Order: sequence, then structure tokens, then C-alpha cells
Amino acid sequence: MFYHVKELQYWAKPERPDPVYAKKLQEILGGQFGEISVAIQYLFQGWNTRGNEKYRDMLMDVGTEELAHIEMLTTMIAHLLEGAPVDQQEQAAQDPMLAAILGGMNPQHAIVSGLGAMPVNSAGVPWNGGYTIASGNLLADFRANLNAESQGRLQAVRLYEQTDDRGVKDMLSFLIARDTMHQNQWLAAISELEAQEGVIVPSTFPRELEKREVSHLFINLSRGEESAQGRWASGPSMDGEGEFQYFAEPYPFADAPSLNPAPPYIHDTPPMM
Amino acid sequence: MFYHVKELQYWAKPERPDPVYAKKLQEILGGQFGEISVAIQYLFQGWNTRGNEKYRDMLMDVGTEELAHIEMLTTMIAHLLEGAPVDQQEQAAQDPMLAAILGGMNPQHAIVSGLGAMPVNSAGVPWNGGYTIASGNLLADFRANLNAESQGRLQAVRLYEQTDDRGVKDMLSFLIARDTMHQNQWLAAISELEAQEGVIVPSTFPRELEKREVSHLFINLSRGEESAQGRWASGPSMDGEGEFQYFAEPYPFADAPSLNPAPPYIHDTPPMM
Amino acid sequence: MFYHVKELQYWAKPERPDPVYAKKLQEILGGQFGEISVAIQYLFQGWNTRGNEKYRDMLMDVGTEELAHIEMLTTMIAHLLEGAPVDQQEQAAQDPMLAAILGGMNPQHAIVSGLGAMPVNSAGVPWNGGYTIASGNLLADFRANLNAESQGRLQAVRLYEQTDDRGVKDMLSFLIARDTMHQNQWLAAISELEAQEGVIVPSTFPRELEKREVSHLFINLSRGEESAQGRWASGPSMDGEGEFQYFAEPYPFADAPSLNPAPPYIHDTPPMM
Amino acid sequence: MFYHVKELQYWAKPERPDPVYAKKLQEILGGQFGEISVAIQYLFQGWNTRGNEKYRDMLMDVGTEELAHIEMLTTMIAHLLEGAPVDQQEQAAQDPMLAAILGGMNPQHAIVSGLGAMPVNSAGVPWNGGYTIASGNLLADFRANLNAESQGRLQAVRLYEQTDDRGVKDMLSFLIARDTMHQNQWLAAISELEAQEGVIVPSTFPRELEKREVSHLFINLSRGEESAQGRWASGPSMDGEGEFQYFAEPYPFADAPSLNPAPPYIHDTPPMM
Amino acid sequence: MFYHVKELQYWAKPERPDPVYAKKLQEILGGQFGEISVAIQYLFQGWNTRGNEKYRDMLMDVGTEELAHIEMLTTMIAHLLEGAPVDQQEQAAQDPMLAAILGGMNPQHAIVSGLGAMPVNSAGVPWNGGYTIASGNLLADFRANLNAESQGRLQAVRLYEQTDDRGVKDMLSFLIARDTMHQNQWLAAISELEAQEGVIVPSTFPRELEKREVSHLFINLSRGEESAQGRWASGPSMDGEGEFQYFAEPYPFADAPSLNPAPPYIHDTPPMM
Amino acid sequence: MFYHVKELQYWAKPERPDPVYAKKLQEILGGQFGEISVAIQYLFQGWNTRGNEKYRDMLMDVGTEELAHIEMLTTMIAHLLEGAPVDQQEQAAQDPMLAAILGGMNPQHAIVSGLGAMPVNSAGVPWNGGYTIASGNLLADFRANLNAESQGRLQAVRLYEQTDDRGVKDMLSFLIARDTMHQNQWLAAISELEAQEGVIVPSTFPRELEKREVSHLFINLSRGEESAQGRWASGPSMDGEGEFQYFAEPYPFADAPSLNPAPPYIHDTPPMM
Repeated sequence: MFYHVKELQYWAKPERPDPVYAKKLQEILGGQFGEISVAIQYLFQGWNTRGNEKYRDMLMDVGTEELAHIEMLTTMIAHLLEGAPVDQQEQAAQDPMLAAILGGMNPQHAIVSGLGAMPVNSAGVPWNGGYTIASGNLLADFRANLNAESQGRLQAVRLYEQTDDRGVKDMLSFLIARDTMHQNQWLAAISELEAQEGVIVPSTFPRELEKREVSHLFINLSRGEESAQGRWASGPSMDGEGEFQYFAEPYPFADAPSLNPAPPYIHDTPPMM
Repeated sequence: MFYHVKELQYWAKPERPDPVYAKKLQEILGGQFGEISVAIQYLFQGWNTRGNEKYRDMLMDVGTEELAHIEMLTTMIAHLLEGAPVDQQEQAAQDPMLAAILGGMNPQHAIVSGLGAMPVNSAGVPWNGGYTIASGNLLADFRANLNAESQGRLQAVRLYEQTDDRGVKDMLSFLIARDTMHQNQWLAAISELEAQEGVIVPSTFPRELEKREVSHLFINLSRGEESAQGRWASGPSMDGEGEFQYFAEPYPFADAPSLNPAPPYIHDTPPMM
Repeated sequence: MFYHVKELQYWAKPERPDPVYAKKLQEILGGQFGEISVAIQYLFQGWNTRGNEKYRDMLMDVGTEELAHIEMLTTMIAHLLEGAPVDQQEQAAQDPMLAAILGGMNPQHAIVSGLGAMPVNSAGVPWNGGYTIASGNLLADFRANLNAESQGRLQAVRLYEQTDDRGVKDMLSFLIARDTMHQNQWLAAISELEAQEGVIVPSTFPRELEKREVSHLFINLSRGEESAQGRWASGPSMDGEGEFQYFAEPYPFADAPSLNPAPPYIHDTPPMM
Repeated sequence: MFYHVKELQYWAKPERPDPVYAKKLQEILGGQFGEISVAIQYLFQGWNTRGNEKYRDMLMDVGTEELAHIEMLTTMIAHLLEGAPVDQQEQAAQDPMLAAILGGMNPQHAIVSGLGAMPVNSAGVPWNGGYTIASGNLLADFRANLNAESQGRLQAVRLYEQTDDRGVKDMLSFLIARDTMHQNQWLAAISELEAQEGVIVPSTFPRELEKREVSHLFINLSRGEESAQGRWASGPSMDGEGEFQYFAEPYPFADAPSLNPAPPYIHDTPPMM
Repeated sequence: MFYHVKELQYWAKPERPDPVYAKKLQEILGGQFGEISVAIQYLFQGWNTRGNEKYRDMLMDVGTEELAHIEMLTTMIAHLLEGAPVDQQEQAAQDPMLAAILGGMNPQHAIVSGLGAMPVNSAGVPWNGGYTIASGNLLADFRANLNAESQGRLQAVRLYEQTDDRGVKDMLSFLIARDTMHQNQWLAAISELEAQEGVIVPSTFPRELEKREVSHLFINLSRGEESAQGRWASGPSMDGEGEFQYFAEPYPFADAPSLNPAPPYIHDTPPMM
Repeated sequence: MFYHVKELQYWAKPERPDPVYAKKLQEILGGQFGEISVAIQYLFQGWNTRGNEKYRDMLMDVGTEELAHIEMLTTMIAHLLEGAPVDQQEQAAQDPMLAAILGGMNPQHAIVSGLGAMPVNSAGVPWNGGYTIASGNLLADFRANLNAESQGRLQAVRLYEQTDDRGVKDMLSFLIARDTMHQNQWLAAISELEAQEGVIVPSTFPRELEKREVSHLFINLSRGEESAQGRWASGPSMDGEGEFQYFAEPYPFADAPSLNPAPPYIHDTPPMM
């Protein structure tokens, strides 16, 4: 169960309205790696955790924090939209600067949400549950989380570069620091799990059941051999189970496929003579 | 530019038709972590790479291999659908086993694709470009790729457990082994980049610009302190820049928000007396 | 079955082209509460009505009218796009006003639809069937309809404020008036049904099967008690079945959850020691 | 900011696994009117409220409670999936009852989420932000909320009828009672606002700007006049501004439309001679 | 503007309930080539037609007919769902035939729509506006329409094979005949336009502006030359502008690409030494 | 299996950065008729072909070429984004031309992809698998392909008109020429199949099973008889099976529908007295 307090986790007031930037900020609210994504993802991972209470508790901590970040961003977007000059039609018709602002904002902020934030990304596409990753396997999921915090911090940093409003920059500097912590945290949790299980997910599948001939083989399917220079092309494999090999001129391991004609009731094209 | 050869990279013929399993296999073809996702993701990452030819070449190698995996799975699904008894209505009306099979398959395999594979997941939801991750930052993206191969191998292993058809198991054992290699590969590439850049993405943002007070702070927002037992709660941080701290009874850093009334032309509810 | 006549239900010619406004108008054509939504929604409700011919007939009347509103809006958008200066590249490169217009329009209006309307919203996101509400329960659905006409009229009014084209305003004043009527109409239909059934949907579920202790209880899960001042916090409940109560310091009614470990073939993370 | 406690708001253990029912329960978790929808909707409405603190506080109360309902449903679904016999292939091949269960469950519960809940509906379609309604106009939005609780209670009641597991029924009886309260609550809040503003949303648009001739006119566009028997067809209008009228044989108010040919650079079909 | 009459364009009563088949029929109602798609598509094409009244009128005729087909299918689905035994839980727990039926139907038909049709396809995925094709170029669009009627008739024929209910078959035989007519019709309209404009869309782009060296060149990018046997590989081209040529061993016409590094504020991976 | 070579199939360097045009070009990369669509479509058609090796080989040739077009467009978009002035905030605040450019570009190009292409259309909506057409019936699918190349060429031509960058125009002139070839090719393949099978898809359904009375009947459901002037309204039908007839004043062939009340456990509105 959850409780809400009215205070924001962190806050800084924007210096001025900026509806075009409000549209951009939607990316880290409702985009693939926005705060809605990480909140839902961590909470679902927590709820689905079976028998590892330390990790469940930690996931609920972080998921609950992300709800506070959603709140900070919705509030910031609402502030940035205050003063959006959406009704100054006559003036806009003559002022190219105003026209550029009106054309660059998300029109739904004026028509649909009444100057409020929406669960959409910076292109206006709604957030969707297909972004969520919660597999029941914690090592797999913590890798997803490390990626989410990496992409999320990268986007926040890019947004930091695209404004000179000191209030916005201040709030972003908080979110960026939290992303730093969360990258640290998932790295720490991953290192715990890898130490216990090994690096290949899932660790519980017997390795002799996979086609081991190709488990450490780099296949050079793109002409040119620059890819031979990487750590993945030679030396001991990262899982400690073999040596990387480089397959410079790869060939298929099988024949061409051949499907039978469909039965008549499917009404495919009949085979030609 | 690409060339195609007719031979499959690997292949094994299924022992018998199984339209219900064909529906399930769609997950690793057209699901969030299916072969379409990794093919598109690696190719877009390769095409967007700026000035790191070794990584670009490697990305094109792997992306091109994933195209071959799409091909293997579409072929397998087409074979599993051969013999789907979709027209035996009268018989189905009396045979519960047949009814269960007809009810458990994806009806689109009979109505829409004519016994062929589709770019959809195991629930029939179309693949979509929103799954794709290609940020221009290679360390961020390689973490996405490590996750994709972790989730992908986990799903392939689960599917392996859900059939006893030796042909299907054989083909899956190849894909699982390739996922092993690809996890190894992204681990290797990540270790190269982390050695050069450090572990926090992006490495190029000056750390003094973030709110450093909270960069290594674990915030316990969920009642109970099981989460204090983890590597993330104490000791040196993974980025070597500080010590983890545990904020056991967290409070907000800011006040409650307060928005101004909307201008009249927005027609929000007027403030009540 | 339907018949079409060529005349528009209502019409006013726009004074001048305005491709940026054409993009905005798409909201009330192809957005969540656009005319496509209400047309499809009312028609499906009508077709699914079982045994209440008066309501079925009324739903078909209104659904059929909404088809005419789709037609009015597609025509208006096509007119507003006439004269969109999409090929004046050289001129645009020097004229900021022209650049603002070209940047603010939906590029698909020039590339995809050839200066025609599309079934998308003002951000360019396609209409989708998931917006549709038709449950078979008329009181539930008429509440959905009242909401749709409320949101729709609100959006039309906001759009009215964002133009000074007298033709556009004239056409909107017709649509706004129809939304007034349709709010009136759903209010009337709702009052009929509530008088007969009571206000809780569905009325046919025996109230003693619900956990009645919490059927009139307001739970204050957000710190602060401003919410105690509302009609919902004390006095007789709206359904006449009890008294509202205010639960000022709520606690959980249950214990913490505990899931069993997954079976081995699921390959979740094994429980840690 | 939010805090989480480990205890569930309410709980009852299911008597036995039921993966087919787990798939159905997803509807009220991740469907159009599931708990994710109402949680996100009420929270966004709260965050976007400008200057009506009583309503903001109330919205945050209810939105926060819905987070607890998400938690109850994810936990219930995880329990119902325990014991799903997804690996019993050989047995399934001969047991029609087992085949029916395996065919009737959502395959993603076994392949993707590892026996956990997902943010999808009962057909497996991901939740999406396009369901969310938060317009800034409270009367409009409370009507949306009343509808959401009406549809939500209706769906919960239907699900109640589709199981005889006493644990599941017990938990549903709690959710159904809360939906009763929430319908009561939105009815109460609506009556407050309507008393203050009137019944037409938005109340702030001058009525003389709409085409008043059609503001109280029912248009009979579907052959037959059953619709004349309703409250909406005669008598004083609900907004107290006029009398309902019935337009029995409606005609268009305008001429047929006529669009100009597209300019050559659009490459439409040239007009034929 | 539209009028509705209560009579169905064509109708035949199903012999018995069949909720699994109801799910399948959704494909030709709400799928990519269902009746909603063609109705919306033809109507939008009609509304966007500029200056070719004969075609506009014809499009409105056919679009209006497709609305009647939507109506026929929603009615048929509602009938097929009458008698769906969704509450017989105890019985289902022991009867595999009943379990197969309950597992094979779309659960939303019982939970969401109350035994009514929905705007979704046979997998339960909502219809979406992205299926719609209306470009302003009539020859392009009539080809889209010919395809839609070809796919639609193919799907209807496959569904005809999957039932032995005489009522359903009768109704399908009407829809299949209309699809025959509509294929005939689009073939006729295409032949008119091709006779006037030529076969390449758009006809108005000066052919000398395209890279004519490759305008009639078949490029053999897949190993093996079976594709040389087709009409497209030799002989006069269909547009009468040249001769087909077969490029048996194709090579690239350009160099490898080379992108510049991103500027620092983008925070991509810096180029490695 | 596939191989990749580093060289582009064709290439021309753009004269200057143009982030607004980069957004537009996304349409023919990730839109409904973009290169991703045709690549996936032709490859799936090829993989699903049963027993017609000439067509399978041809489909693989063209599908593989389209992969090269994806590559050309991603490279072009990345070049056009080089030099996008996304961090010049202070300057933008005063320069309307710069503001117009920043407002007109897709913000995700700067925030999400780091100046790279994305699998989205020109409105920023992700590509989705629901666009794909692969039915197993080659004549149906080749009609889909002819449409795709018609729409695709039309869009490329429109984009050609919207730039005066000679590099971009050069590259487009190559793609336009290939679309010319591909229209020629599908026309050729269609003429082969129609010669063998006839023009109605599917050809294998016995014509006597359809309701032949309406197989050649044009139904005039839109007031006015302009549509009587077309080739489809009189004369021999295109399938050689009859004569077109014009049904000038059409009536329904059936009665009004009548549904039974839903059973009580569905909780629909009970029928009113």
C-alpha cells in the first residue's frame, strides 16, 4: 500500500514559461525511458519477485522513488506551460518568433490537457506497457534497469544542454544525480548476482543442452574484419567457459528451406507448373 | 548493401505440426526481445555509429546474423502450421482435443497469413519500432544489447522447456548458444568501454554539474530495511567516486507545489471560493 | 444500412489557408474524443443494445449524426490545407514566418495525404479502437458518452479561442452547440435510467455480496485533510444506502504478500541463501 | 512524494491455481478501465489541478489508493499462475483438459513474465497512455472518473460471476465495494460542481457564441421515431436554457462541398475531362 | 450527411452460438482488412477527392455500403455470443469441451463488451487509423483498394471454410460476392485511369528527373537465378518506356558511408583511439 | 542467411544540414509505406511462399534490396542532422529562424537517438508490424506490393519537391527510379498470375458458392448518379463472368436485427418496461 505526502522530493522553479521545452521534457516523463517506464518497471519487478526479500524491498524503494520523479516532472511541465500564448492569434500572424513557439509546442498541451503534463513522449506518442521489462529473472531484469538508467541519464543530460533556464537545470541536476546513483546501484546488484550465478542468463539452463560449437564464435557477416580487433574476437570468453573464436568467412550450417503447399481450404496461390 | 543466400544458418525439421506452439514461438520472432527487435536494433546502432569503425563493423555483423535468425524462425513457424486442422469443423465440434488446439492457436495464422509467420508476438500484438534502442552512445546501447540477449535467451530457454519435439529443441539449442555468445560479446565490449570511460553513462557530463549530495544515496522509501543488506547500501560506490549511504527515514527536499490558475481561454474549472 | 447525401450538415468556408491550424483541428477529428471516436462508439453501442429499442434508435440517430461531423471536419481540414506553401523551399530558407508555418504543420499532410485530412490526432498519432466504449450496460455507457461530449466541447471551445478565422469559428459554433445538445441528451437519458435503476452501475449485482464496510468509506491516503471538506466525506451517500465516512489515518487491512519460488523450468533467479 | 508499506490494502488467497483466470484478471489491471488507468488518471488530474486544493488533495488520495489496487491484482495474478503446468508437454498431448488450459492462458505469462502479472489487458494488449483523461477541467474529468468506476465495477462484477474460487471472490468483493464508494464519490463531487457551474462543460464559454438554434434539438437521422419517446426529445432541457425539440425529418443546413484541385507539386490525380 | 435505416443490407441467422467463431469473425470487422478499414478508407478518399466528381461519388457509394457491412458483422457477432456459457465455472472445471470453448474465445467479449462486437481484430488488437490509405492520388489509392478487397475476400473465404453453420455461411456468401464486385469495380476504375495516365504512379513526375539507368533493372540480390524466369526480367517494360534488364551479379553504386563525430553536447561515445 | 557489404547501393551527400527535412524523410523510412515496411513485407512473403520458387527467389531479391534502401535513408538522415543547432538556446531565444528550425525538427533526434535515424514516421510514430501484408496468396500480395510502390513513389516525389538540396534530390532520384522499376515488376508479376488464375482473388473459391446476384452490382448509396458514368456501372465485368449493373435506388435485402437480452450474469441494462 502507498501513502502520499504533498511535498515534492526536490524542486526548483523555472525562470520563465517555455512551451517548446515542455514538449521536450515529456520525453523523460512519458518516453521509452521516462519516469513512468522505470516506476512501472521496478514496481512490477518487485511485485513479481519470489523469495528474495532483499531485492523485493530494494525494488519497491526505487519504484516508489520514481513515482516522486513523475510528480516532479508533471509539475515542471505544468509550470513551463503557464503563459503559453495560445490565444494570441492575431499577434502570431505577424510575429515569426511567436509563430515558431506556437508551431513548436505540442498542440495537445493547449487543446487536450489544459496546460498540464500528459503520459506521452516528446513526439506526442502515448506511453505504452510494452516498454515494461519484468521477467522474474533478477539478473536479466537488473541489466534492463542498468540500461534504463543509462539511457535515462543520457537523455536528461541532453535536455540539460538544451536549456539555459537555471530552475530547469537545477531540477535536472537532481534527476541526473539520482540516475548516477541508480546506475551505481544496478551495477552493485548485478555484481552480487553475477558473483553467485555467473554471467550468462539464465544460469540454470544446463550448458550441455546448447549447441556449444557456436557458444563462443564471432561470425563475421559483414565484409571487412575491423570487428576482429575487439575483445570479443579472441581470448578467454567472459563466462570462463571457453575461448572466443573469429569465423572470418562464414557459411550456412544448413540447406535451403522447402515448405509444402498449403491445403486447398487456405486458398493460397496454387503452385505454378 | 546486403546479399541473401538461400541456405539457412541452421535448421532442424520439427517432428510434427503444432499450431499452438507456433503461436508461442512468435514471441522470440516478433516480441519485445524477438529477433526482429535485435536485428533492427543492432543495424540502427551500426548505421548511427560515428567514428568508431570497429564497433560499427561488429554491429553490422551481429545485426546481419539476426536477419538469419528471423528467417529460421519464420521457416519453423510455417512448418509447425502445416497440418493445422483449421477446417475440420464438424470433427472439432465433438473432439475436445481438437477444439483445444483450434482455440489455442492464433486465429490469424489461419485467416490472415495463410499458415505463415507474422511480425507479431505470442499474444498477437504487432512488433513496433518503439522497442528499438539506438542512442548514439555505445556504452548505453551495449547495455541495452546485453539485456536484450539476456531476456532473449531466457525466453528461448522457457520455450525449450515447453516442447518435446526434438527438431524444435535442436533449433532452439542453436539460438540459445548464439545468445550465449552474444551475452559474452556485449560483456566484452562493455568491459572495453568501461575501462576507457568509466561506468557512468554518459561519461562526458561534468560530475560537478550534478547534485552530488544524492549521487550515492540509497533512499529507503518502502517500510522495512531489508534493502540495507545489499552492496548498494554501503561501501565504496561502483564508480569509485564516493561511498554508498543509506537514507533510512527519508523526507522530501522541497515544498508542496502550487500552480497558478489557467488563463480564461483554457476553460479549466475556475477556482472555487 | 446507411444512405449518404452530398450536402454537409453545416458548413462555413474558412477565410484563408492555415496548415498549422489544420494540424490542430485533427484533434477533434481523430483524437481520443474526436468525431471518429463518438461515431464509432455510439454506433457500436446501438448495435450491441439488447431489447431497449428506444435507446437503440436514439444511439443510431446520434452515431449517424457524428458521421456527418467527421465529414464536416475532413472538409474543413482539406480547405485549410489548400495553399500550404510546401514547395517554397528557397523562400522558406530566408523567411522565418514561412519556416515557422512549415515547421508547425503536420508533415504528413503534405507527404502522405496530399493535403487531405487523416484519421489521426493533433500530434499525428492514429485513432485507435481502444478508445471505444460499448459495454452492453447503458447507464455505464451513457456516462462515457456524457464525458465524451464534455471533453469534446471543451476541446472545441479551446480551438475556437485559438483562431480568428470567422469561417472556422462559425463552423465550430455549430459543433459546440451540438455538443451542448448532446450533453443535455446524455444527462436526460442518464436521469431516466438512474430513476429506474439507482445510481450504482451495475444495479443488478446484489449489494450484500460486496464488502459493505468499505462501500461508503473515504480513505485519506495523501497527507493533509483538505479532502475532508467535500460532499463525499460525510453525510448520506449518493446511493441512499449509507453514510459517508472519512478514514483519516488509514492502515492496511491485510498482511504483506509472499509468493512461492517459481518452478525450475521457469528459470527465474533462484532464491539466495 | 510517496511511501510504500509492505502490507496489502486487502487480500484473500486463491484456493487453487488458475492460469486461464489469471489471463482474464489482467483486464481490470491493464485494460482500458483497469487499475493502472485509474491510478495514472487520478494522479495526473491531481498534479494538473490549479488552485482547488480540496479537489487536488482528494484526487491524490484516490490515485494513491489505486496504486494499492494494482498491487493487489499483480499479487493475485502471480498466485493464480503458481502451478501453471506449462512444461507438461507429453501429458498435455494426451489430456484435453490440460491442453485446454494451456491453450487458454496468455502464453506470455509463461514465456515473458515468468509467472508474473504484466501491464496488459485480458487479450494481451499493452496498457497505453492514450486511455488517460486529464483535461484541467474538473467537471469534465469527474465525469470521466464516474464512467471509469462504472465500467470498472461492471467488469469486476462480470469477473466475479466467472469464478467459484472463494479467495478470488473475496478479493473482488473488496474491489467492487471500493468501486461503489468511488461512484458515490464522483457523483458527490459532480453534484458540488454542477451546483456551482451548471451542467454544461465548459461553463465559461459564452452561450451566445454557440449556434443556439441547434443547442436543444434532437435530430432523428435514423428511420423510425422510437427515439421521440425519451426525455431528450421534449420538455425543458437539462441545462435550464430551453426546450428540447425533435427534428423528425432532418435535412442538411449546407451545400455539397467543393475542393480545389491540388497544386502540381502534390501530384494528386489531375482532374479528368 | 448520412441517414440510417433499421433494416440490414443482408442477413442470415446463425444456427447456434459459437463464441470461438465470434472471435475469429472479428478479423473481417476490425482487422487490417476488415470492414472498418474499408469504410474509413473509402470515405476519407471520397472526402479528399479534388475535382473528380464521378470518382468522389463512387467512393461515397462504396464507403457508405461498407458501413452497412460493419453493421451486419457486429450483429452476427452479437448473435454468436448469445449463449456463451461464461459463468459455468464448476461445469467447465470438469468438461474439457467447455474449457476449450471458454479458453478459445476472446475474454473481452464476456468482460468488456457484454456479449457485443468490438472494434478489434481476431487477436483482440484494436483497429487503428494507421491502416487507412488516402493519398489524394486516385490511381495509387484504387490500387490500395483492389488489394484491400483481395485480402478481404481471401479472409472471408478462409472463414467460410472454418464453419459449417449454414447461417454464417449464407451471410459470408453475400460478403464474398460483394468483394467480387468490389474487385471488379477497382479493376475497372484502375483501367480507366491507367488508360488516361499510364501505369506508373504518379504520372506527373517528369521521368527524366529519375535515375533512368535503374528504372527497368531487376537486381538479383539473392543467390540463384530463378528470378530471371519472370516477366519482369526481360522484354518490354510494362510502362512502355524501356526493356527489362537482369543484373545478375550486382555491386554497389557507391562508397561506404562515413559520419562525422557528434558535437560534445550530444554526449555520444567519443571516438576511440 | 544474409551478408552485408559496407558500400551503399547508391549515395549522394547532402549540401547542408537540415533537421526539419530529416524529420520529413523519416516518412519513407519508418512510415506505413517506408522502406522498413517493404523490406519486412517482401521478406515475409518470400519466407511464407510455398512451392513457387521463381516468386520466392524474386521476393528475396527485392526484400534484400529494400534493406539497402533502409541503410541509405538512415545514413542520409544522420547526415542531415549533423550540425543541428540543438544547444544554442540563448541564440534561439532571439533568432526566429533558429527557433523555427528547432521547433520544426523531431525533438527525439536530439534527445533520444543522438542525431541518428529512428524507426518512426515523419510524425514520430513508431513503425509497426500491423502494416505488413503477407497472406500466402501471391496475387493478393503482389497487389499489396504494387500499391506500396505506388504510395512510396508518390511520397518520394512529394519529398523531392520539398527540398532544393542537390544531394538529397540526387539520392531521391535513385529511389524514385527503383520505385518505377518495382511498379513495373509487380505489374509484370500480376499479369502473369492473372493470365493463369483470373482476376478475382482467391481464384480457387467456387463462384457458385457466392451470392451471385450481387457479384456484379454497383449499389448507389450516395444520392446523385455521377457514379453511373464509370466503367464499373455497365458493360462486361472485368472477370468476364457477367455484366455490370447499376442499382440506382437501393433497398435493404433483410429485416431489422433483433438481439435477445443478455443473461443476468452479464449485468447489462435490463430491458425497460
